[in-house]
Amino acid sequence: MADIDVTPVARVLGLMISALAGIMLIPAAVDASFANPDWTAFVESAAVTGFIGGAMVLATQHRGAFELSLRQAFLLTVASWLGITAFSALPFLGLGLDYTDAFFEAISGITTTGSTVISGLDALPPGILLWRSLLQWIGGLGIIVMAIVILPFLRVGGMQLFYTESSERSEKVVPSAFHLSAWIVTIYLVLTATCALLYGAGEMSAFDAINHAMATLSTGGYSTHDASFAYFQKPGTQWTATVFMLAGAFPFVAYIRFLKGERRAFWRDPQIRGLLRFLLIAVLAMALWLWTTREIDLLDALRLTAFNITSVVTTTGFASDDYGRWGAVAVAAFLMFTFVGGCTGSTSGAIKIYRYQVLWIIVRSQLLRLVSPHRVVLLRYGSRTIPADVPASVLAFVAVFLATVALFTVALAGMGLDLVTALSASATAITNVGPGLGPIVGPAGNFAVLPDAAKWILSVAMLLGRLEIFSVLILFDPEFWRP
Amino acid sequence: MADIDVTPVARVLGLMISALAGIMLIPAAVDASFANPDWTAFVESAAVTGFIGGAMVLATQHRGAFELSLRQAFLLTVASWLGITAFSALPFLGLGLDYTDAFFEAISGITTTGSTVISGLDALPPGILLWRSLLQWIGGLGIIVMAIVILPFLRVGGMQLFYTESSERSEKVVPSAFHLSAWIVTIYLVLTATCALLYGAGEMSAFDAINHAMATLSTGGYSTHDASFAYFQKPGTQWTATVFMLAGAFPFVAYIRFLKGERRAFWRDPQIRGLLRFLLIAVLAMALWLWTTREIDLLDALRLTAFNITSVVTTTGFASDDYGRWGAVAVAAFLMFTFVGGCTGSTSGAIKIYRYQVLWIIVRSQLLRLVSPHRVVLLRYGSRTIPADVPASVLAFVAVFLATVALFTVALAGMGLDLVTALSASATAITNVGPGLGPIVGPAGNFAVLPDAAKWILSVAMLLGRLEIFSVLILFDPEFWRP
Repeated sequence: MADIDVTPVARVLGLMISALAGIMLIPAAVDASFANPDWTAFVESAAVTGFIGGAMVLATQHRGAFELSLRQAFLLTVASWLGITAFSALPFLGLGLDYTDAFFEAISGITTTGSTVISGLDALPPGILLWRSLLQWIGGLGIIVMAIVILPFLRVGGMQLFYTESSERSEKVVPSAFHLSAWIVTIYLVLTATCALLYGAGEMSAFDAINHAMATLSTGGYSTHDASFAYFQKPGTQWTATVFMLAGAFPFVAYIRFLKGERRAFWRDPQIRGLLRFLLIAVLAMALWLWTTREIDLLDALRLTAFNITSVVTTTGFASDDYGRWGAVAVAAFLMFTFVGGCTGSTSGAIKIYRYQVLWIIVRSQLLRLVSPHRVVLLRYGSRTIPADVPASVLAFVAVFLATVALFTVALAGMGLDLVTALSASATAITNVGPGLGPIVGPAGNFAVLPDAAKWILSVAMLLGRLEIFSVLILFDPEFWRP
Repeated sequence: MADIDVTPVARVLGLMISALAGIMLIPAAVDASFANPDWTAFVESAAVTGFIGGAMVLATQHRGAFELSLRQAFLLTVASWLGITAFSALPFLGLGLDYTDAFFEAISGITTTGSTVISGLDALPPGILLWRSLLQWIGGLGIIVMAIVILPFLRVGGMQLFYTESSERSEKVVPSAFHLSAWIVTIYLVLTATCALLYGAGEMSAFDAINHAMATLSTGGYSTHDASFAYFQKPGTQWTATVFMLAGAFPFVAYIRFLKGERRAFWRDPQIRGLLRFLLIAVLAMALWLWTTREIDLLDALRLTAFNITSVVTTTGFASDDYGRWGAVAVAAFLMFTFVGGCTGSTSGAIKIYRYQVLWIIVRSQLLRLVSPHRVVLLRYGSRTIPADVPASVLAFVAVFLATVALFTVALAGMGLDLVTALSASATAITNVGPGLGPIVGPAGNFAVLPDAAKWILSVAMLLGRLEIFSVLILFDPEFWRP
């Protein structure tokens, strides 16, 4: 095996950065059309970004057929998310943020986490608000494509379970990665537009509707208001958001299958069934609990719990209420919900439903083996047999995921954060949820007051979580760089 | 497969309960020799216990060769710990505790956890103090025998990794389970006696020395003083405790090997090396941190951190200082240390070093496979190849362990406990450590003020943790009871 040739990696990265420069012109145009002087920040950022992106493309001439090796694919994955974030941060400098805060806000957007260091959102120029929503929307699209097209091939975190599902099967459905991506973009666009229309038909202004639709489908959670979703009081708006957060957390392969005529594509997907079953139980239980312990209508309790639990479980992070004040059991439950996550091949982060299902299948088979040691237990997931290398892969992922949360908790506590803040901030960053617990990182808090070092630690945590940890970890393995 | 015949299970349980009645006469004799009227509580308890134990033995006549099936072994494991605890609680009723508190104190003793609901220890009659220490000592012995003789055979939690080690190899060394147990008892006795002599040679009274030696070797952590180990201020006493807590957390198979002439038995044991390496790094790091951030000698810092970290990692739970006041990073670190645990085949609880080592080996092999998907990675632990069924077994254990901590956290929060108290109480019970974090369950707190329901929840948690969860869980699987 030869040394890694970084030329094609740099070329693709250059193309991506150039495209990013083009996207920066959208908020510039919006600000300019509102006669807002902030459009210059976007144009300046676009100029710098476009220049460097273009230079990278020109400096890396392409020779021969274009194909990435396994290692180049890993390298590109990490380099592209880091590189795009580094340039996406530039427009925030125009708001007067320092680069630490700008980078934090950008990576929180790109990774669809939604933790923010900016307050006074309601008074910000439209361009920068749109930029935040755009980052989440692009990041969401990026992660779906990555999870469906790249990660199963890279066998990260047991995703090879979906390798045959998204490639072998869809080879009949859609001929190539390019066509698969085109399908994903179209579905994502249509879902976002539908959500925006429904938001707009309700109480939201057109601008709010578009921004919140982008933050909803990407399960990102940035809002244009400091009050987040508590700004919108109509039940219809909150139920719409609940449905479309779920839509963003569904595996996009199911949409493609459905559109290709498989009528029961959603119902037969074990991830979707698992997610809905979990949400149903959690929402009903907590709604009953709220209803009986607080003076609140059952219907209101259902809406509140459905919205806020769906928001955390799909890793969106919108808040319509400060659930930190719902009592100790709610606080503990929301901390656990942080770790759940939606389906793979969606915009959702965290551990994700299918890994819990695989874990449960393994635990169940272990129990059976304790009673009957010589019984052969066939591990099945939905209609398929679980490939032999998936259990160890899934379990290694979960172990490393939790170890990462523990390490980052201790590191954040080392910055002087109290235990609940440190633990929930670490968890909410790695799971890409957004809000944690307590006055600083809780749903009613703001990350701005954290020390700079903590912001960089959390930035690393968000990236690790978004890229399923192993994609990043592998670059630190000496084996990776050995010729 | 036939229905489970519970007759032999009841017979062995009856024998154990009868033996327990006999042991109750020891504290009775001590109280009587001090002319303390509390001896009657022990004699009454012994009478009830002995009557029921004897009746069980008489009612279950033994037919044919004595051999337990796999299911009977599981049933006996759970029934014996529950049954012995139920009767061990009786003498505490004489103190005026209600049965909830008495059961909690008994199971915290038997499982070598060391959480207590009793305060004013310094003023208690010697008999009851000795009873608490005796429970821990017996529980510690019970868990070593169970972990070496029974659990590897039952293949619980990846312990089959030690099956060949403790049976195949030791078949040459010691001919049967009975002889293996005799070796364990002898070593455990000698270690306890040595520890007591050293304690007594220092600042402790003979009574304190015997009690603390039993609580040290069993990694239990009950003390005869409310101040726990902070009562003893001489550095030598604390270093002695540090060494013997470690001795209790070493695999007892290593002692047997050493005594049989294998000179390098300790050094070559991968569990011991892993445990020592972890402790060395953790103690040095936190000592340096204490030294630089607080006004404290480096030598004192080393003693403080070595004692308190070893105490939590070995799941003893003695405290020589309230580390809750060492700052946020220490609090977070101690919460993580709670999950570590010592070696299997020792008196230690929690997840245990070998499972982390197996996890690490699996994670490492997964990283290698990401780079080179077709490489065959041989999983080796120490000098042996890891059996094929161990990875899934270990990983299922860790998953269920953490899920149990999460579930019990939510349940305790449901009793109105704040998040840190609920989380650390759940963790410290399941890991059999003893102290958690915060004013109630922290090293300076007392579990007495918790609501009764929380005490029962924690009692279940201690038992689950002590029996490696799966041994209990399996009884709830319908497959277990199916003929």
